[in-house]
Amino acid sequence: MTSNETVGSVGETAALARIFPRLPNADAALVGPGDDAAVIAAPDGRFVVTTDMMIHGPDFRLAWSTPHDLGWKAAASNLADVAAMGARPTALVVALAVPADSPVTLLEGIADGFRDACAALAPGCGVVGGDLSVSDTLTLAITAFGDLDGRAPVLRSGARAGDTIAVSGVLGHAAAGLRILFEHGVMDATELRSREPLVDAQLAPRPPIGDGVLAAQAGATSMLDLSDGLALDARRIAAASSVALDLDSALVGGREALDGGEDHSLLATFPAGAVLPGGFRAIGRVVAGAGVLVDGTPYESRGGWDPYEGWNGALG
Amino acid sequence: MTSNETVGSVGETAALARIFPRLPNADAALVGPGDDAAVIAAPDGRFVVTTDMMIHGPDFRLAWSTPHDLGWKAAASNLADVAAMGARPTALVVALAVPADSPVTLLEGIADGFRDACAALAPGCGVVGGDLSVSDTLTLAITAFGDLDGRAPVLRSGARAGDTIAVSGVLGHAAAGLRILFEHGVMDATELRSREPLVDAQLAPRPPIGDGVLAAQAGATSMLDLSDGLALDARRIAAASSVALDLDSALVGGREALDGGEDHSLLATFPAGAVLPGGFRAIGRVVAGAGVLVDGTPYESRGGWDPYEGWNGALG
Repeated sequence: MTSNETVGSVGETAALARIFPRLPNADAALVGPGDDAAVIAAPDGRFVVTTDMMIHGPDFRLAWSTPHDLGWKAAASNLADVAAMGARPTALVVALAVPADSPVTLLEGIADGFRDACAALAPGCGVVGGDLSVSDTLTLAITAFGDLDGRAPVLRSGARAGDTIAVSGVLGHAAAGLRILFEHGVMDATELRSREPLVDAQLAPRPPIGDGVLAAQAGATSMLDLSDGLALDARRIAAASSVALDLDSALVGGREALDGGEDHSLLATFPAGAVLPGGFRAIGRVVAGAGVLVDGTPYESRGGWDPYEGWNGALG
Repeated sequence: MTSNETVGSVGETAALARIFPRLPNADAALVGPGDDAAVIAAPDGRFVVTTDMMIHGPDFRLAWSTPHDLGWKAAASNLADVAAMGARPTALVVALAVPADSPVTLLEGIADGFRDACAALAPGCGVVGGDLSVSDTLTLAITAFGDLDGRAPVLRSGARAGDTIAVSGVLGHAAAGLRILFEHGVMDATELRSREPLVDAQLAPRPPIGDGVLAAQAGATSMLDLSDGLALDARRIAAASSVALDLDSALVGGREALDGGEDHSLLATFPAGAVLPGGFRAIGRVVAGAGVLVDGTPYESRGGWDPYEGWNGALG
């Protein structure tokens, strides 16, 4: 096992053999990798599913992210979507496309990132299948599954006037980390992240996955994961629920907390007076109307991160 | 709606709005696209899942495949993996990454391909979620689901000496179509496929999806879908089952039928004397030993299609 082996030089079969032992097992896997398909337990009689791609360029840069970061972030962001339905994550499938001249250690690092993110954020969840391809563009495609354990899914459409708006997880940290990375330009991020902890919030976020189930059990009326920023995602709950979400600026924080994307924290609404579960803290109140308010005033900023606008290929 | 609109010019939200109405609905969708995740019925208490990527270059060329072909083939090949477990396909999730300058009609064509493949090959199955990204490399990542309706999954490991080897679907047609395309070089394939029907077997295969459930109901002892060619895939059943598969050349056909990949036909073994269901026809017998035999003689050809070896970027 030498460090100059590439995916192309060892071939698909050998590369897969190097990845599989590093991937986390899923407690729910009845038939795991190796056949035409996996078979996963769905004791609830339903399963929750979400899919997402991470593309080199718009979604990450190898100058900044380690392979471990890529696996970690791909797992974390998809687990957050499962959690945002009030479900318990059970399994992931992972399709990877890498340039043929990629070192095998790239795949190993990505696999280790999946393993560690599952262990840290959703114990018992694991990788039950995958696909490995060659591509000029490094691409991760993740599909994640969860079980509702008999509960109703928590949708975006159930918020009612009078509900408490609450969030679990950080606000604006991932955007602050991205800003710091941009301020320092294209460089090795290793040294920077050692003295700027917010960079880790961008490169390897730690969303509060377990709080999704706790929110559902506590009667959350709506929930989503904050991928595009608090203001933009709150507007989605407002639209789906035909209400307005009035955020309290003293509880939210500044502009980066309102507009910064990629935290993958959980935004939920709870009946007034509910005891907020887990790490949830109140940040506002649902009112009649439409859209997002801050301290009672309409808030119109677009916010968030649009890869169609924000990605500049020339920056690498 | 003009033909020079690109994904980048209309933006992600508008592009998605153009795709969604074209996608097939899934009967099993309890919560469809639009929330953090979908919720799918799994009446069996388990679900079958497979994932696969199609990459521009190694897996397809826009010079040959229409957008409709891409959606069709992505659906068909993943549905075949579900069918090969003996499961009934219920749903797909689809992640697409396209160059920003792609016409929106590319996405519409892909969506129509998914719709038509589901309708033709697995009625009731549909698309329950997805993701749209920008990438320099056109990439489709598909994850497909199925329900076992209370049956045991049909694995690769259950073949026993004495079993009948049977296949449903064509053998070598996709490889013949690819050979014809290569012989004619890089060109518009429209005219060629009108006079060479085998080209359609490569660009828009029609695997016998419904025969997967029929095989399971008829007691199939092992099954897989022929993605890498009969000989290579038969070797996988032989290895997983610790037996040898002896193919009858008079029933199989020539070298292209043995070695050609991408037919996505179903290869299965049945107890001796079983009445073969659906489109299955006998092509040999399981015997004690190892590997694949043809007329009793070991067959060693590698066969199949390895994108690490077969893809030449210069050919476009």
